[in-house]
Amino acid sequence: MSKYSIGIDYGSLSARAILIDLSNGAEVATSEFVYPHAVMPRDFFPGITLDKAVALQHPQDYLDALQHTLKELITETDVNIEDIVGLGIDFTSCTILPITQDGTPLCFLDKYKNNPHAYVKLWKHHGGQKEADEITRLAQERKESWLSAYGNKVSSEWLMPKLLEILHKEPELYQETDKFVEAGDWLVWQITGQKVRNSSMSGFKAFWNKREGYPSHEFWGSLQKEFEYVLDDKVAGEVIPTGTKAGEITEYGAKLTGLKPGTAVAAPIIDAHAAMPAAGIVDEGKLLMVIGTSTGHLVLSKEEKNVEGICGSVMDGIIPGYVAYEAGQSCVGDNFAWFMKYCVPERYEIEARECGKNIFQYVTDKAAEFDVGESGIVVLDWWNGNRSPLADFDLSGMILGLTLQTKPEEIFRGIMEATAFGTRAIVDLFLENGVKIDEVYAAGGISRKNPFMMQMYADVLGKDVKITKTTQAGAKGSAIFASVAGGYFATIKEAADVIADKCDLIYHPNKENSEKYRRLYQEYVKLTEYFGKGGNDVMKRLSSFGKGKEDWQP
Amino acid sequence: MSKYSIGIDYGSLSARAILIDLSNGAEVATSEFVYPHAVMPRDFFPGITLDKAVALQHPQDYLDALQHTLKELITETDVNIEDIVGLGIDFTSCTILPITQDGTPLCFLDKYKNNPHAYVKLWKHHGGQKEADEITRLAQERKESWLSAYGNKVSSEWLMPKLLEILHKEPELYQETDKFVEAGDWLVWQITGQKVRNSSMSGFKAFWNKREGYPSHEFWGSLQKEFEYVLDDKVAGEVIPTGTKAGEITEYGAKLTGLKPGTAVAAPIIDAHAAMPAAGIVDEGKLLMVIGTSTGHLVLSKEEKNVEGICGSVMDGIIPGYVAYEAGQSCVGDNFAWFMKYCVPERYEIEARECGKNIFQYVTDKAAEFDVGESGIVVLDWWNGNRSPLADFDLSGMILGLTLQTKPEEIFRGIMEATAFGTRAIVDLFLENGVKIDEVYAAGGISRKNPFMMQMYADVLGKDVKITKTTQAGAKGSAIFASVAGGYFATIKEAADVIADKCDLIYHPNKENSEKYRRLYQEYVKLTEYFGKGGNDVMKRLSSFGKGKEDWQP
Repeated sequence: MSKYSIGIDYGSLSARAILIDLSNGAEVATSEFVYPHAVMPRDFFPGITLDKAVALQHPQDYLDALQHTLKELITETDVNIEDIVGLGIDFTSCTILPITQDGTPLCFLDKYKNNPHAYVKLWKHHGGQKEADEITRLAQERKESWLSAYGNKVSSEWLMPKLLEILHKEPELYQETDKFVEAGDWLVWQITGQKVRNSSMSGFKAFWNKREGYPSHEFWGSLQKEFEYVLDDKVAGEVIPTGTKAGEITEYGAKLTGLKPGTAVAAPIIDAHAAMPAAGIVDEGKLLMVIGTSTGHLVLSKEEKNVEGICGSVMDGIIPGYVAYEAGQSCVGDNFAWFMKYCVPERYEIEARECGKNIFQYVTDKAAEFDVGESGIVVLDWWNGNRSPLADFDLSGMILGLTLQTKPEEIFRGIMEATAFGTRAIVDLFLENGVKIDEVYAAGGISRKNPFMMQMYADVLGKDVKITKTTQAGAKGSAIFASVAGGYFATIKEAADVIADKCDLIYHPNKENSEKYRRLYQEYVKLTEYFGKGGNDVMKRLSSFGKGKEDWQP
Repeated sequence: MSKYSIGIDYGSLSARAILIDLSNGAEVATSEFVYPHAVMPRDFFPGITLDKAVALQHPQDYLDALQHTLKELITETDVNIEDIVGLGIDFTSCTILPITQDGTPLCFLDKYKNNPHAYVKLWKHHGGQKEADEITRLAQERKESWLSAYGNKVSSEWLMPKLLEILHKEPELYQETDKFVEAGDWLVWQITGQKVRNSSMSGFKAFWNKREGYPSHEFWGSLQKEFEYVLDDKVAGEVIPTGTKAGEITEYGAKLTGLKPGTAVAAPIIDAHAAMPAAGIVDEGKLLMVIGTSTGHLVLSKEEKNVEGICGSVMDGIIPGYVAYEAGQSCVGDNFAWFMKYCVPERYEIEARECGKNIFQYVTDKAAEFDVGESGIVVLDWWNGNRSPLADFDLSGMILGLTLQTKPEEIFRGIMEATAFGTRAIVDLFLENGVKIDEVYAAGGISRKNPFMMQMYADVLGKDVKITKTTQAGAKGSAIFASVAGGYFATIKEAADVIADKCDLIYHPNKENSEKYRRLYQEYVKLTEYFGKGGNDVMKRLSSFGKGKEDWQP
């Protein structure tokens, strides 16, 4: 009789769940739930226009996703819940919410339901840029030892800038909050009663490391007196390793999930990270790109190196015995979606419908008709800032090379190429800093849906790109962790050997196109130097001007 | 009993004719004819894909326009053709065609009907960029005295680069051509039998000047042996001043036009220039912007100054006793049309139809809802290269400051602002070089149709902008010249006093917005320095790469 595990992958706009047969790794069933509130629109709160840097979500959507997807998996298969050994969750991160002592989100309280700061701050919330800069400045001044593991620069997407932003903008709400918690940890708490934090999110997003814990009280106190004991007061909780058991389903949890009380629940992991074992990557030198709304780049290495401009490096961060390095691009699928929403003319939509293609496919097919470089367009893919290698969210997107003959698909292709160049910039950064990359893997929906783009990535990187089979890499990885937490497998490696994808689809670089892209990439690098490294800070000034701030000067 | 004159304004896509009552300047009737061939599409010729720099037209469209508009003016009014004292024509320039000895366009011959070089090269044809660069280089080397009157740089839009391009690419066709002639002069020849050339186009587009004539044989011969006698062999013809009589309607011309044989026809003038007297500008210090597909900037001055980067300065070029200075932006209405064609999403089109607005108005209204600088976008308006002050057609457009929140109307507004900044750059150039500008006038359809844009121009320039009343400034100016050629008025000034518009609509700058635009303009200037003046020649390299040329290196 087979045993099973379940993984749920909480993305930016939906959650996807998977049920895995542990005897052979087969995907027995999947289910998806789209968040009704998505990312809150700018006019969601009466009388308030949210700043463009703000990205909020509603925690009720996460509970609804849990309930809906598990119910669907269980009722639509004949699997006995007795045979489900564990549940694993991966989640976008740092995605945090303020809660009361009993775990209630502040936004569920009448008092706070119209206060944006009471809601979930999604990973891509950049409202704490000023605070991130402050933390960076102080940590550099004090030569804090932990800083080098985070590319020597603090991102506004991480935990502490988000907390400091709330302290600055809503001190009362900050005081009344019992804890600020990752949405993934909060969900585990809801169903197991265990208030633990996971090493993955703590390590990559909250400056925690296995040997030294968090940065010192002294450091946080130097930043602001009220912030001195922030970690003890507002963050506290045992940090437990990825893949271990966080707790077991309670009676309350069983009602919410439909699972048997006592079922093991794994410590959550960052969504992109769950895809590593799902792709069978348990060794060094293999870069995994998880391509979604944004792209995460993960690689394991036995050696600890300082790589300036990456998002983080955490020993035992994913697979025991290896340092997990993470870099990222802030905006990939999001950029394509922006284009499809705002830049596609009516007759293209009509033609696409007439030939029965979705608009994304239609525009991609038109873009593919051009030769490399034929359009004379170069794009900087910074619509959502630049995570790696610049770690700067006041940067913005640029399209250069427009003529009266330029067609929409040429602009779209330029955007797609820019995301490939952005990935190449990250690969170059790792190589220059001694982190080996011998193979390149891709996961995430786009990697299977868009052969044109994956061929382009192979051409731009000048390397084979191997595509993972499942479109549910995150959920599958979480199911691997769940199987270990539930005791079915002894190690992640053992679980991965059975469950992980065997990559069967490989794109090989086309030599001629690689050479052309090499030259276009040089233009991308030169423009990156100019706009991203101090040659002309126009993007930052415009961003500040756009926010009505008057303190810029060209 | 009133007398009348007729002006026809040949634009880039249509011709507009006007019938004026000379007793009071009233516009009795107007007529428009849209060219059926427009600008030839890239796939017009079997088996040939035209380069993006190519812009061709069909001369039959011009004859049809003449016939159609005059017939309409005459049959739809009760004006007796005995009372029409003259006909004036203004035309885009340099817009040239190769003809046989009897005036037949080469493209009318079977032998050449599939040869692109046998057709009209429209003013914005940029196929001779390499040739323009060669002429500039040699003229600079030889310190040719005429060069300074043309901003020290030769534009590929002018006559000689267009001829040299044909010599290089189609030597046989070049040899078989009897003359290359401005389309305006060719039309006058068709209806009067007089083979004359006008001082306006010869002065501004063919290096002719009143005192010294054309550049020397020696100069052209140094460029290429076969080009030594190009002016005598391929261009020759008496140059006669603007506003004088070129000839009289012949019997054949009467059949074509419906006018009486013997009716005076004025020497043609560049389309934008005809608008000067139409706006009542017959004195110095008054800048006229003629805003259409592109924008021409004209100002008169008693003094001759060297202004690098303008298109030309010609003594007696428009009004006797004044130097006429011309600068220009290559792409204004064309840029807006590009945006409307390629960048407006379907739901905007649907909403526009539902609320009964044309799409241009709909998008403009949405753009107007933003504050100055709120979008954080700066655009370089070089979709069609930059005529003034850079005289460089290998430059291209750029949009900077894009985020995931950027809406189409914000990009459109950025493009519109860039055209205003481009105008300000030209005003600054004149002022820095000692050409006085006290007042600013605007003519052309857009200036009356788009109050939002005209207010923006006033804000960006920090000056009142006065709008000419007629939407037919070009045709009205031509009618003024026709009235002088026909002997009804003794001078252009006298004619203008009766016929010219009294500007009644004035936009005053808003102080607060002017200050904000001043700061955005600084960003525009800084980016112009970088991309347009050698900081980073990426646009030129991409343009060359796009054309499949392999000689670039970033």
